[in-house]
Amino acid sequence: MSTGLWLIGARGSVATTAVLGLAALARGHSGAEGCITAGWAGLPDWDEIVVGGHDVSHVSLTKRAETLVDAGMIPAALLAATRDDLELADAEVRPGYASLPSGRSQQQEAERLAADILDFRERHGLTRVVVIDLSSTEPPVDTTDFSVEALTEPDRVVLPPSSVAAWAALLAQSPYACFTPSTGMAPLLELARESGVPVAGQDGKTGQTWLRTVLAPAFTDRGLRVLSWAGANLLGGGDGATLADPEAVRSKLASKTRGLRDLTGSDVTPLHIDNVPDLGDIKVAWDHVHVQGFLGSRITLQTTWSAYDSMLAAPMVLDLTRLLALADAAGLAGVVPELGFFFKNPWGSEVHGAAEQAGALRAWAERTAAEQAGVLRTSAERTAAGL
Amino acid sequence: MSTGLWLIGARGSVATTAVLGLAALARGHSGAEGCITAGWAGLPDWDEIVVGGHDVSHVSLTKRAETLVDAGMIPAALLAATRDDLELADAEVRPGYASLPSGRSQQQEAERLAADILDFRERHGLTRVVVIDLSSTEPPVDTTDFSVEALTEPDRVVLPPSSVAAWAALLAQSPYACFTPSTGMAPLLELARESGVPVAGQDGKTGQTWLRTVLAPAFTDRGLRVLSWAGANLLGGGDGATLADPEAVRSKLASKTRGLRDLTGSDVTPLHIDNVPDLGDIKVAWDHVHVQGFLGSRITLQTTWSAYDSMLAAPMVLDLTRLLALADAAGLAGVVPELGFFFKNPWGSEVHGAAEQAGALRAWAERTAAEQAGVLRTSAERTAAGL
Amino acid sequence: MSTGLWLIGARGSVATTAVLGLAALARGHSGAEGCITAGWAGLPDWDEIVVGGHDVSHVSLTKRAETLVDAGMIPAALLAATRDDLELADAEVRPGYASLPSGRSQQQEAERLAADILDFRERHGLTRVVVIDLSSTEPPVDTTDFSVEALTEPDRVVLPPSSVAAWAALLAQSPYACFTPSTGMAPLLELARESGVPVAGQDGKTGQTWLRTVLAPAFTDRGLRVLSWAGANLLGGGDGATLADPEAVRSKLASKTRGLRDLTGSDVTPLHIDNVPDLGDIKVAWDHVHVQGFLGSRITLQTTWSAYDSMLAAPMVLDLTRLLALADAAGLAGVVPELGFFFKNPWGSEVHGAAEQAGALRAWAERTAAEQAGVLRTSAERTAAGL
Amino acid sequence: MSTGLWLIGARGSVATTAVLGLAALARGHSGAEGCITAGWAGLPDWDEIVVGGHDVSHVSLTKRAETLVDAGMIPAALLAATRDDLELADAEVRPGYASLPSGRSQQQEAERLAADILDFRERHGLTRVVVIDLSSTEPPVDTTDFSVEALTEPDRVVLPPSSVAAWAALLAQSPYACFTPSTGMAPLLELARESGVPVAGQDGKTGQTWLRTVLAPAFTDRGLRVLSWAGANLLGGGDGATLADPEAVRSKLASKTRGLRDLTGSDVTPLHIDNVPDLGDIKVAWDHVHVQGFLGSRITLQTTWSAYDSMLAAPMVLDLTRLLALADAAGLAGVVPELGFFFKNPWGSEVHGAAEQAGALRAWAERTAAEQAGVLRTSAERTAAGL
Repeated sequence: MSTGLWLIGARGSVATTAVLGLAALARGHSGAEGCITAGWAGLPDWDEIVVGGHDVSHVSLTKRAETLVDAGMIPAALLAATRDDLELADAEVRPGYASLPSGRSQQQEAERLAADILDFRERHGLTRVVVIDLSSTEPPVDTTDFSVEALTEPDRVVLPPSSVAAWAALLAQSPYACFTPSTGMAPLLELARESGVPVAGQDGKTGQTWLRTVLAPAFTDRGLRVLSWAGANLLGGGDGATLADPEAVRSKLASKTRGLRDLTGSDVTPLHIDNVPDLGDIKVAWDHVHVQGFLGSRITLQTTWSAYDSMLAAPMVLDLTRLLALADAAGLAGVVPELGFFFKNPWGSEVHGAAEQAGALRAWAERTAAEQAGVLRTSAERTAAGL
Repeated sequence: MSTGLWLIGARGSVATTAVLGLAALARGHSGAEGCITAGWAGLPDWDEIVVGGHDVSHVSLTKRAETLVDAGMIPAALLAATRDDLELADAEVRPGYASLPSGRSQQQEAERLAADILDFRERHGLTRVVVIDLSSTEPPVDTTDFSVEALTEPDRVVLPPSSVAAWAALLAQSPYACFTPSTGMAPLLELARESGVPVAGQDGKTGQTWLRTVLAPAFTDRGLRVLSWAGANLLGGGDGATLADPEAVRSKLASKTRGLRDLTGSDVTPLHIDNVPDLGDIKVAWDHVHVQGFLGSRITLQTTWSAYDSMLAAPMVLDLTRLLALADAAGLAGVVPELGFFFKNPWGSEVHGAAEQAGALRAWAERTAAEQAGVLRTSAERTAAGL
Repeated sequence: MSTGLWLIGARGSVATTAVLGLAALARGHSGAEGCITAGWAGLPDWDEIVVGGHDVSHVSLTKRAETLVDAGMIPAALLAATRDDLELADAEVRPGYASLPSGRSQQQEAERLAADILDFRERHGLTRVVVIDLSSTEPPVDTTDFSVEALTEPDRVVLPPSSVAAWAALLAQSPYACFTPSTGMAPLLELARESGVPVAGQDGKTGQTWLRTVLAPAFTDRGLRVLSWAGANLLGGGDGATLADPEAVRSKLASKTRGLRDLTGSDVTPLHIDNVPDLGDIKVAWDHVHVQGFLGSRITLQTTWSAYDSMLAAPMVLDLTRLLALADAAGLAGVVPELGFFFKNPWGSEVHGAAEQAGALRAWAERTAAEQAGVLRTSAERTAAGL
Repeated sequence: MSTGLWLIGARGSVATTAVLGLAALARGHSGAEGCITAGWAGLPDWDEIVVGGHDVSHVSLTKRAETLVDAGMIPAALLAATRDDLELADAEVRPGYASLPSGRSQQQEAERLAADILDFRERHGLTRVVVIDLSSTEPPVDTTDFSVEALTEPDRVVLPPSSVAAWAALLAQSPYACFTPSTGMAPLLELARESGVPVAGQDGKTGQTWLRTVLAPAFTDRGLRVLSWAGANLLGGGDGATLADPEAVRSKLASKTRGLRDLTGSDVTPLHIDNVPDLGDIKVAWDHVHVQGFLGSRITLQTTWSAYDSMLAAPMVLDLTRLLALADAAGLAGVVPELGFFFKNPWGSEVHGAAEQAGALRAWAERTAAEQAGVLRTSAERTAAGL
C-alpha cells in the first residue's frame, strides 16, 4: 500500500536520519536494527513509503545530513548512496507554522498546512499520508479556551504550533503521531475520534526513559522496593540547547518521570538535563537506583546509557508510520492505546512497563493484520483498501 | 498448612539469612521486601514454616549470624530479636553428606539423610517438608554410569554430594529445589516424576544474571542487536573463595551465560568471577553491553549492581518453600517449569526472559491456588490436604 | 602541646564524627586512615587535644552519634567505647550565634563568643585553641559595608553568622580554619594577619571535588584537552536538605567548579546537587569527562564515588587542628597558603591540583616542624612555647 | 635537527596512527592534543622527522589507515590529506625479524636490521635515527643463556624477536624505546650504556594503567588505605586477539599490576583482558577500588575509561622520538629513568605515580634542553651536534 510519511520538523536531526534510513532500507544498504516491525506482516514495505513534510528551517535535508556525517553519526558512504532520495524528499518540504501572521486565524493556517498534505497525497497517488510531529519541545501552554470556533478568530492564539499541525492532520484525514512532549494535544484527541482518524502519542520513549520502564517493573516483579531513582542526562546538539531552557524543559521532565512514579510508587528525584555541546547528538544518561531489599538491606544499581538520540528515534518513526497505516486501513478512529510502547506519556493507557507494552503491541499488530487479511479476501478488495 | 523447610547447607550464609529472615517476618519485625509471594493467596504463612537441615559444618547458625552482623549485613537488633529461633533451627541440623565413608554405599547414605527428614516431619507433625539445596558449587561430574542399582554398591561413587541429597529428598517424598549450579541432577528429574514429587531448579538467579535476563529481551523488543555482553563479578565471603577455583566455577559460569546466549543470539564474552575478600558478602557486578542500532550506530549500556548476595537469595528460598508446598498440595509430580523464574538454568523450560517468567509464575500460582481452593470445598477436606 | 579544638557547629554530623574519632584514636580503638598527618613529627598528639565548641542545636553529641550508629555509619562498639568522651565534649558546647538579638551589636555577640573560647582555654590550661567552622552552608552575602566600626552599631547586620564566628576567633587570638563555603570571609583575612593569627580556608575538599583536582592536572600532564566535565551529586542527611535550597547552594557550587575551570581551562557544565533522603549521609557522585585526544579522537572517563561524607571531612578537621597548632607555634600570621590542600577554594593560593598541593603541604609541615625543633633547643624553651 | 623515526611494527595500528598523525601535525591539519612535548623547547620539529621501519606484514600503511577510517577512528579527510606521506613512509619499510631462518645466527639477523637503519640514516642525511618498538606482546622468555657470543651461533635462539630488534638498534648506534611488554630486554640495558646509546622503556602506559597511577598516589596522599583494586579490560582489534592468548598476556598483566602494588602496598586483584572483537580499536576499562576510610568506613570508586588505544599510544611515540633525540644530543648513555612517565614498567626507576613522573620528566627536559642550548653557543656547534 503506497503510503505517505509527512514529517513536522522535516529538516531536523531525527527527520533527516529517518528519511536517510528509510532510503537505505528500501535500497538494501542497511539492516533494519532498531525497527521493531521489521519482519511483521501486513504493513507497507519500505519502498512503498514516500516522504514530505513541513519545516520552518531553510537548511536542506542534504545539508543537515552532511553535518551528521561530519559529527561521526552517519557513515559517509550511506549519505552518498541516499543523497538522491534526500533531495527528492527535501523538494517536498513546505513552510511550516511557527507563529501567527498578522490578520490571519489559526484555522486559516491549519487549512494551509492541510492543503499541503492533500496536495502531496494527490500528486503521489497515495492511499494515505501518516503525519508525525518531530518538532522541538515547546513550553507548557494553557489550552482551556480552546474551541473550534475560537480558532477562526483572526489574531487569536488558542493552540501552540504543535497542536495547529495536529489539527491540520485531522483536517487532512491523516493518521497522526505526536513524538514531542508538547502539552496542547489533549483537546484534539476527542476530535480525532470524531474525525475517524487514528492517533498515537506522546513524546518518544527512546533511551533513558525506556530503560527505566524496563527496569522498574522488574524490581516490582522481584518484590523489591525502589527508594529513589536519581539521574543525569547529558546531551548536545540542537536538542541540548532547547532543553537547557528551563521553561521548555518542564513538559519534557514531567513526561520522563511520570511513568517511573507510576511503576515504582516511590518519589523519583527530579532528573536534570544538561546541555553539553561537545557531545553533539550523543546522549549520555546516568541513573542511580536505590532499592530496599530483604531485611532492609541496601541494593544499588547504576546504569550508563550512551547512544545517538536521533538513531534511536528514527526507526521508531518508521515503525509508527507502518503501524498507523495499518490502524487506518483497519478503520480505527481516535487514540490507539497499543501504540503506547513508543511513548513516555502513552495516550489512552496507564501501562508504562516496556515488556508489557511490547507484548500488547505485538498482539495488536498481529491480530489487526490478520483481521485485515481475512476481511479482504480478493486482490481487488485489497487494492480498494490500499493494501 | 504446617510446612517443613529442610536446608542442605543449613549453616551457610544464605541459609542463616533465610532462617533469621523467616523468623523476623513471622514475628513482624521486618517487611517482606524481596519475597515475591508476600501477598499471594493459598500459600503457607510465615509462622507455619519450621526449619531444619543438613550441614557438614559445626559452626552454629547463631555464630554464623553474628559474623553477618559484624560484617554490617544484618542489623544487630534483628539478630537479638530472632536469636531463639536460630537456636531452635540449629538444634534441627543433622550431619550432611560430603564423601562416602569406607564400606558404605551412596544408597545407604541417602537413606540416612531421608530418615533425618522423615524424623523431622514426624516430630513436628508437618504436612510436608520442602527440601532446598543451598550447598556450595561443585565441579562438573560425569553421571553417565548412574542407575539406582549402582547406588547400592559399597564404596562406589556414582553421584556428586548434591545429587545424593536430592535423591534423599525423593526417598522422603519431599518436594525439592536445587538452588546450586551442580550438574549431577539430570538423571534424577525423571525419578522425581515417577516418585510423585514436584521439583524445581536450578542455580538461583539472584543478581547480575537476573538483571541480564531483564535487559536482554528488552533489546530484542526494540529490534536492537546485541553484539557483545562482557562483564566482571567481584565477591568475597566463602562463595568468593569457592568460585576462585577455576574447576568449581565452570558449572557456575556455564549457567550464567546460557540464558543470555539464548536471549540475544549473540556470542557473550565469558564472564569473570573475582574473589575480592575485603568486599565480604557484597557482590559487585559490572556489565558492558555493546548494541548495534539503526544504520549500524553504536549504543552502549553499562550497569553496576551492588548487593549482599545472601540477601537476594534468602527471600527466594522462602518463596520456593511456599510455592513447592502449593505444587505438592496440588499433586504435581516432576519438574514444575513455571518456577523457572528463580533459576539461571530453568528445568523444563526454554524461557529465560525475566518479565515473561514473572508473568508465567504469577499466572500458575494464581490458577493453582484457585483450583486448590475450589477442589477442597469443605474445611475437613482442606485439613486432610494439609492446607 | 596541650591544644584546644573549638568547633563551630559542634553538634553536627562532621563534628560528632571528628570528636568520636579523636577519642577512638587517642584510646587506640581505631587506625588513623584518612588522617594525612598521622605519622608526622612536631604536631600535638591525639590525646593532647581537648574539644569544645559553639552550636545552636540542643541535640547532644551523644544523641547525634546514636543516629549515626543507626544509619550504619559508625559501629556501635566504637560509640560504646567513646561515649564518655562525647559527653565531656558536649558539656563544653556553648550557645552559638545564629541571628542578632534585638538591641545588640554583632561586635557584642563576637565578644560573647570569644569569651567562651578564652574561658575554655583557661579552664583546661591550653597552650592554644584552634577554631574550626563546620557550620552549614550560608547564602552568598554582600559584605562591602564591612568595617570594624560598623560592627559596633546595635541592630546592624554587617556580617553573616560564619564571619561573626571567625571574628570571635581572631578576638580570642585563636588559629582559625573555615571548612564551609560561606562567602563573607574576605574582609577578615587581612585582620587575621594584623592580629598575628594563622588562618586557613575555605570549603573542605572532601570527595568529588578532590577527585576532580586529582584527575584534571593528570589530563593536562598528558597534553589532553578536557572539553566538558559534567556531573551529578546525590546526598541525603541534613546537608542534602540544606543544599536543596538553590540560594544556599550557590556559594557551594561556585566553590566546586572554580578549581576545575582553572585546571582545565574549559567550560565546566554546572553540577547538580540532589537531595536523596534515603541515601542518608552517603554521598554518591558521578562525573562524565569528555576529553579530546590525538587527531580529535574521543576519550571519555566516568567516575562514581561513594562515601560517607562526614567520614571524609572529620579526619581533615583533626589534621587542620594539628597543623594550625604548628603554624601558631611557629608564629605565622594570616593566611597559610600551604594548607590549601584541604580546601575547594584555597585562600592565598592559585594551586588547585591535589598532587601539587599535597607535595607543598608535606614540605611546609616538615620544614616548619624542623625549624621549631631547631629553634627551641632546651626543654624549658619548648615548654614556654607550648610544644 | 633532522631526525629519523624507525618503527618496529611499522605497519601496525599504533604505527599507522603515529605516522599519519605526524604528517597531520607537520602540515598543520590537526592540533597536538596528546603530545605532552607540544610546546617544549630544544626538540626536533614535527616536519624534521622522517619515518621508516621494519615489519613482517605486507599490508601497507595506507591500506591499514583505510581500515582505521572505516572503523570510525580516523576521519576520512585526514587520511586524504596525508596519504602521500603514508606512502613515502611505507616505501621505507623493510622486512622485519620474526623467526630465525635455517643456518643463520641471531647476530646475522640483527646486523641485517642494523644495516637497514644505517642505510635509512644515510640516504636521508639524518643526524640520528630513534628506534621505537611497537610490535605485539610476546610470551615471557628465559634469557639466562644470553651472551653476545651465543648470538653468533647459527640456528641458536637466544633472544626473543623484540630483543633482536633492540640489539640491532644498539648496533646502529640508535636511541631506542621499548613500547611493548616483552621480557627479554634486561640483558641489553647494560650493553646500551656501554654502546653510548640512550634507551627507555618499557610497555607504554597509555590508558587504564596510567589512570591507576594517577589515582593510587592520591589515595595515599589522603592517608586512605586501598583494600582492593579490581578491574576488567575490554578490547578488540588485533591487540585483543593477541592478548586473548593466556601465555602472551602474562607479561602484559604483570606489567599492569606491578606499579599499582608498589603504590598501594595492597594486593591487587588480577586484572582480566577480554577480547571483544566488535569493539574494534576502542578499549573500555572498568575499575572498582575499595578503600578503607576514617574509623573503618567504606569508600568505593569506580572508573570507566573508553578510548581508541592507538590514539593514546601514537602521540607518546612522537614524544619519545623527540625526547630520545634530545637525550642523544646531550650524550646520555644507557637508561634514561626520567622517561619512565611513558611506561608501565619504568626502567631505572621505582617511581610509578603519574604526577611525580610528569614533574620529573618536565624538569629533566627543561634542564637538558637548557644545557644543550648553553653548551652549543655558536650556530656551527649546533649544526655539528645536529640541533
